Amino acid sequence: MKRSFITEIKGEEEAVLLKGWIYKIKKFKTFAFVSLRDKTGVVQLLLEDLDALENLKTEMAIEVMGVPVKNEKAEGGIEIHIKDLSIIGNVYYDLLPFSINQKKVNTSLEMELDHRYISLRRPDRRAIFKVQEEIVTAFRDYFKGQGFSEIHTPKIIASGTEGGSELFTVNYFDTRAFLAQSPQFYKQMMVGAGFESVFEIGHAYRAELHNTWRHLNEYVSLDVETGFIQDEEDLMNIQQQFIQHLFQHLKSSCEKELKMYALELPEIQEIPRIPLFEAQRILLEVYDKKSPVGNLDAEGEILFSKYVKEKYNSDFVFLTKYPAVKRPMYTMPDEVHEGMTKSFDLIYKGLEITTGGQRIHDYEMLKENIVKFGGNPEDFGFYVESFKYGMPPHGGFAMGLERLTMKILELQNIREATLLPRDMGRITP
Amino acid sequence: MKRSFITEIKGEEEAVLLKGWIYKIKKFKTFAFVSLRDKTGVVQLLLEDLDALENLKTEMAIEVMGVPVKNEKAEGGIEIHIKDLSIIGNVYYDLLPFSINQKKVNTSLEMELDHRYISLRRPDRRAIFKVQEEIVTAFRDYFKGQGFSEIHTPKIIASGTEGGSELFTVNYFDTRAFLAQSPQFYKQMMVGAGFESVFEIGHAYRAELHNTWRHLNEYVSLDVETGFIQDEEDLMNIQQQFIQHLFQHLKSSCEKELKMYALELPEIQEIPRIPLFEAQRILLEVYDKKSPVGNLDAEGEILFSKYVKEKYNSDFVFLTKYPAVKRPMYTMPDEVHEGMTKSFDLIYKGLEITTGGQRIHDYEMLKENIVKFGGNPEDFGFYVESFKYGMPPHGGFAMGLERLTMKILELQNIREATLLPRDMGRITP
Repeated sequence: MKRSFITEIKGEEEAVLLKGWIYKIKKFKTFAFVSLRDKTGVVQLLLEDLDALENLKTEMAIEVMGVPVKNEKAEGGIEIHIKDLSIIGNVYYDLLPFSINQKKVNTSLEMELDHRYISLRRPDRRAIFKVQEEIVTAFRDYFKGQGFSEIHTPKIIASGTEGGSELFTVNYFDTRAFLAQSPQFYKQMMVGAGFESVFEIGHAYRAELHNTWRHLNEYVSLDVETGFIQDEEDLMNIQQQFIQHLFQHLKSSCEKELKMYALELPEIQEIPRIPLFEAQRILLEVYDKKSPVGNLDAEGEILFSKYVKEKYNSDFVFLTKYPAVKRPMYTMPDEVHEGMTKSFDLIYKGLEITTGGQRIHDYEMLKENIVKFGGNPEDFGFYVESFKYGMPPHGGFAMGLERLTMKILELQNIREATLLPRDMGRITP
Repeated sequence: MKRSFITEIKGEEEAVLLKGWIYKIKKFKTFAFVSLRDKTGVVQLLLEDLDALENLKTEMAIEVMGVPVKNEKAEGGIEIHIKDLSIIGNVYYDLLPFSINQKKVNTSLEMELDHRYISLRRPDRRAIFKVQEEIVTAFRDYFKGQGFSEIHTPKIIASGTEGGSELFTVNYFDTRAFLAQSPQFYKQMMVGAGFESVFEIGHAYRAELHNTWRHLNEYVSLDVETGFIQDEEDLMNIQQQFIQHLFQHLKSSCEKELKMYALELPEIQEIPRIPLFEAQRILLEVYDKKSPVGNLDAEGEILFSKYVKEKYNSDFVFLTKYPAVKRPMYTMPDEVHEGMTKSFDLIYKGLEITTGGQRIHDYEMLKENIVKFGGNPEDFGFYVESFKYGMPPHGGFAMGLERLTMKILELQNIREATLLPRDMGRITP
């Protein structure tokens, strides 16, 4: 007999074979209700053999043959009258580390992360990673659809892209290597190598000494780079179209999950593009809020998002024209605004989720800019070398998958949006 | 004017805007042919202004406005009469490290890898990564279509899965961590955590002291794990169906690339499943070839593939029932064949491309097996712990993306199938 998934049951089958975990057990005088959970949902089983109940415990993996019967009182309108039940995955615990079949979880985030194999069994926790998976699907489908090529670039590298202070070191045979902070150099290289437009879904590593609600030391970076652009406006157009596609995709693929989090995603219209200096001026004038040189701080991002929401009814805002001193040496200078660059951040509900911009594509200009930044072009080896052979105007951006997931679902901590987070204090499980 | 891609040109347009790189220049008395290459193909441009030629050099990035004219002698049957040409990405070289517009490349693989940003401009090199990309697409589409969930698990881990000798160490703040050899523990954990069926496309790291044509120290692992299986036959069924889907997908998506490599992919029928001991017996009887205990060596894999090809007309063969001593401690023992396991390898054209099997899912049995292997269950921390909470029967397999690409295209060295390989002697570019 072929296995049925819970949400597939129509109630008209003569019998169904179900597999899953015991979610809840509720004993009555002459029978018991056993809730069965599989990856699609939960269904109520009617158990009339109370002797069998003695062997059952929540979270056991079981296999059940039973008859579906319509019952309006049961979740989903169907219950299953058990004909045969066998335990296929035993349990060896006295008490679960925390209960998972109650509305509220009686535990801390740290405890949940320590026991991810338990906490993820909660449908609301599982829902986060369904949404995350669909973000990745939307990303891949959108960019493949636009003719971008998916690449896989090395994470073990010989030197850092943006200075060495936030790099993890790897002992690589007889030498020292690093974990890549981003695929920046490689995605640019592949644009020049003829791929023209590329994307990558891969890990990035930051040895940052931050242990906050929005920092991870290992995260999944959604990277995009494309050649033959006019300027950074092209890139913001692409980013905006992707966000529009993403929200459409999530609405249709994650209806259940969004409902679980009581969220309704808006139609994404035009995302405002506001120069950073203008945002700083507004923050000062409207909120009396001072900003650091060439950036907004965390509070500024939140306040400015609030302003944009009120004024433009947009959860998103592009901050543009970051000053050169605050961007990496490969960022294309803005020819109109002295000292500024053709770069941008995308702020979503008060948090930066994207950094992007046009890159310098001319070999001589790149070398000059490295010198201007106090560096030596020779230290950049193959990176600078690759610009000798006809690099077209290009640029791109990168989004943090976990940040995007967190903000879409309005979670409080980025670790909630990470299957198995890595931070300053955690490398297990 | 909107950019056209080369393969989109119909020859009936009044004018087209093209962007790309100068592939070849051929000067005649009163005109020149300039070949333009973009990510879709190559087209011949007719340049009548010979003065302009002086500024042009191969591999420059250019933008061309021109009139398409049918010309049967030109590649693709169309040539473009240039109306306007501008250089948008300059070159700064005297000689290319090696020529890329000739039929043969006058260089070594090492030189090509040193200058990947040049070698990948060759259409035949680029084709390899188109095929690789479509392997990934086929993998993802197939498993998503089967209801598997895509996951991203950490590559920074606290301890190894299969012994510590082949692990790279990472300096992780004040502690020592490792790079994951595989997502084995995590994919099993997610099956148990309610995902049921998962796949992952991610890097894996092996600090192996091998520098051969088939070894990489960083590679992309295509991982699959699924719960509620009967036994390893289920897994081989899944693997076989995927291979069937993959070959169908490549035939339709990579027609041009397969033609470039003069390859015709076969229809995949039933893949033979032969116990290892049987394969060893055949090797000895037919080829007088001795095998190491519990395995085939590289020569044995090649010989046995030849045997299977002749006898079953299959490029693929499953070797089954590997002895327990040669498999990891989590491998499910075979209850019929003493000392053997419910595991398998998939050999393709003489090379192992998949390792898989059913895993032990019972907590007590797993602990016993670890002890039997001379280990201490307590050393396995969260891994063993996660088996206390109802782990269903499960198993899975992993394929190396670069190996699969190499064998499909019949390349000689795995580095040819890697954008930027990492081996004992190479961490750049």
